[in-house]
Amino acid sequence: MANAKSSSLSRRETWSLIILAGACLGVLANTFEGEGAPLVASLAFSGIAFAVTFSMIRWLGPVFIKAGLSGKDMAKPNRPVIPETMGAVCAVVYLLVLIFFIPFAFYKDIVAATSGGGNRDVVVEVHHVETGRTLHRFPHERLASYLSGLLSLQCIVILGIGDDLLDIRWRHKVLIPAFGAIPMLMVYFVDFGVTHVVVPVPLQPYLGTFLDLGFLYYVYMAAVAIFCPNSINMLAGINGVEVAQSLVIAVLLMANDALYLITPFRHSATDSHLFSLYFLLPFVGVSLALLFHNWYPSKVFVGDTYCYFAGMVFVVVGILGHFSKTMMLLFIPQIFNFLYSTPQVFKVIPCPRHRLPKFSVETGLLDASVTEWTVPPSPLIATALELLNWLRLARIRKNERGEIVESSNLTILNLWLIWMGPMREDQLALSMVGVQIVCGLFGLFVRHCLALLVFTTDNRALGMMIL
Amino acid sequence: MANAKSSSLSRRETWSLIILAGACLGVLANTFEGEGAPLVASLAFSGIAFAVTFSMIRWLGPVFIKAGLSGKDMAKPNRPVIPETMGAVCAVVYLLVLIFFIPFAFYKDIVAATSGGGNRDVVVEVHHVETGRTLHRFPHERLASYLSGLLSLQCIVILGIGDDLLDIRWRHKVLIPAFGAIPMLMVYFVDFGVTHVVVPVPLQPYLGTFLDLGFLYYVYMAAVAIFCPNSINMLAGINGVEVAQSLVIAVLLMANDALYLITPFRHSATDSHLFSLYFLLPFVGVSLALLFHNWYPSKVFVGDTYCYFAGMVFVVVGILGHFSKTMMLLFIPQIFNFLYSTPQVFKVIPCPRHRLPKFSVETGLLDASVTEWTVPPSPLIATALELLNWLRLARIRKNERGEIVESSNLTILNLWLIWMGPMREDQLALSMVGVQIVCGLFGLFVRHCLALLVFTTDNRALGMMIL
Repeated sequence: MANAKSSSLSRRETWSLIILAGACLGVLANTFEGEGAPLVASLAFSGIAFAVTFSMIRWLGPVFIKAGLSGKDMAKPNRPVIPETMGAVCAVVYLLVLIFFIPFAFYKDIVAATSGGGNRDVVVEVHHVETGRTLHRFPHERLASYLSGLLSLQCIVILGIGDDLLDIRWRHKVLIPAFGAIPMLMVYFVDFGVTHVVVPVPLQPYLGTFLDLGFLYYVYMAAVAIFCPNSINMLAGINGVEVAQSLVIAVLLMANDALYLITPFRHSATDSHLFSLYFLLPFVGVSLALLFHNWYPSKVFVGDTYCYFAGMVFVVVGILGHFSKTMMLLFIPQIFNFLYSTPQVFKVIPCPRHRLPKFSVETGLLDASVTEWTVPPSPLIATALELLNWLRLARIRKNERGEIVESSNLTILNLWLIWMGPMREDQLALSMVGVQIVCGLFGLFVRHCLALLVFTTDNRALGMMIL
Repeated sequence: MANAKSSSLSRRETWSLIILAGACLGVLANTFEGEGAPLVASLAFSGIAFAVTFSMIRWLGPVFIKAGLSGKDMAKPNRPVIPETMGAVCAVVYLLVLIFFIPFAFYKDIVAATSGGGNRDVVVEVHHVETGRTLHRFPHERLASYLSGLLSLQCIVILGIGDDLLDIRWRHKVLIPAFGAIPMLMVYFVDFGVTHVVVPVPLQPYLGTFLDLGFLYYVYMAAVAIFCPNSINMLAGINGVEVAQSLVIAVLLMANDALYLITPFRHSATDSHLFSLYFLLPFVGVSLALLFHNWYPSKVFVGDTYCYFAGMVFVVVGILGHFSKTMMLLFIPQIFNFLYSTPQVFKVIPCPRHRLPKFSVETGLLDASVTEWTVPPSPLIATALELLNWLRLARIRKNERGEIVESSNLTILNLWLIWMGPMREDQLALSMVGVQIVCGLFGLFVRHCLALLVFTTDNRALGMMIL
């Protein structure tokens, strides 16, 4: 598969990408005017990121295979060997783009801080006696939090590549995102460290308006950081599904950010949501490029690196932007998939190495995969499985003695196949995109409409930050 | 070689490391008193880093070999296959330690900023109207520069691992450190951006006391960032030499830092040199652990990752601490090796893929390796080679017609072997350590004594920063 042809861009692709990148560079050059246009610059960077990622993935295919970074696509009749860990390419391009973006993000502040004159009233000069340097009110705390986000992402990329390379054991790799989150939590701790949450109205008589969670807030953040990357890594295994779900979450988060930016008056959360867009726009750029190669029939695999990386992007924007609760509302399918998987994760039900849907060579369709019970389940588990079967939440097969000999693997992908019947791999991936969109829109509805039932205001209307 | 025995710690090693790590943890717990003791904490972290790196390298050996990260040691009779890229383990431990160290580095400032009361006169509270947050004079600019250093190091580790994995072409990999330096330069640009240099006294009538290099200063910094990692990568190829030279440079830089810290009065460069120690102490910790495994006869190889990473640590402390010129004085052997190599690097003289000294199975000793001239050199080059041969800076061999058929490869390792005769691998590595120490001490002498001839003061005595 890795011949010279499949690893070079077609003439049409070459020209499209050159034109895209050229246009974006043009736009970029024009953002250094007035107070700068960071959002436009970010959009232009995302275009460049798309072009670079698209080309690099194509070009690096044979190099990755030669380096042993490859895997077999089991859901195809001929089981082709294709490059693995391409998420690392995405991640590296993304990180470099975010680094190059730093001066654009802070251009307004650089101008204000260095020109000093004119009517820019934000300039406050303090002569710093100790170092002899002139300080200005440059938003170093925002810079530090931007950098801490980058550090966390780089951390998880390094550890993710290590995981893809070294095949780290399952119970160790669950903790990789926790290590990735450490830079962010450290900087959060030394930097501003808001650990208050707004208390829902019904509980306010008992707890007050705000509750300082203190140390527990860090535990909460670490839990979010462990959950998001791992939950994306769990809802995986068919062509395109990892990237597509991440793209849906990113786009919905961006829609949520836009709600805060289109309001006529500026409020406290605006900066957080601008910050979030800076991280999400290039993410959409690199992910789209990856999806082109990873959609059915896949030319490349994304690797655990991509899942960790994508999850961590959401963690970074959610935590540093103080809207991690909102973010979790976009993870409904992932949360369901995790809860639904727990019986297998905790070995109450046997868990094979892979639980991805089973490919049938005859029909070319995927169907729910099963776990075989070599020893029949205990009466309690058998009853539970019967119940799940009756609720159509699992499928079981019994032998002539009425003992359960097979039960379907408990993942959302298998469940969908039980409900909808066997389907082609891309149809299943598209279904998951649909589920993710519907659940996400519901989540945002809950956030901005139903939340008013338990909180006094939606912070979109008033300048108040909640968790 | 990778059996269960060689990949586990002996009982004595286990206990030594546990005691070391335990003692360090004890010390660490006691640094959260008064204004904190960041230097003591850094020392304790370095001990922990040593213990963790030492164990991880041992444990991960078979895992690395299984993942294809291995190489043959050509300078041994039986050419054993040993794990490669172990520098990545060092680097990851180092980065995690520096991340965990953040609250310790800024503990004094956290205390001053949050307690607020008492006689801590540095507390300046400004109520930030826009965000409702209370700001204090927390040194965000120092935090940002610390984080930018970390980002650069992570960047180069990711790219270094990519290089080790994918075998990137020579002319591409030279630029890897440039990418690694970008985060630091970006933050330097948006953050404080000192681009002035002190002009030597003889030139002051023409240029003034300070010269603003502006954009050129960034070019200079990028050049330093490209040179240091690559120059360490060039002085490589025998057991232990990469790590040993880096350790010598690190220890000499630490000695230089100590000069600034033991003066009774505090001055502007103190913070920079404290900062430098925070980066160097854990580096010495992880490098020592690596050296134990990498010294002759090597149990592991360090990989390009280590060379890039080590070089970048020096770049980070040199640039962010504003003593990059001083730092370059510790790179005399590397600079010599680079200049001496240029004829081969630029293909004036043929350059084989590897130029490391040749191992003789009969004697067990290394001797200078040679390049064969399939076509005799042009008269000009032949004359130059004859001259080098006469100066004992190279060794040539002629055929019966007087044409040059062989010339030694132009590296400092081969030159040393020409001067001193064949020797065992560890003797050669030790010689390089000696050369590095002598040259480094000479460099520091130049810096602190001879520099007074062209600059008015040594900044160790007066609070003035030079380059």
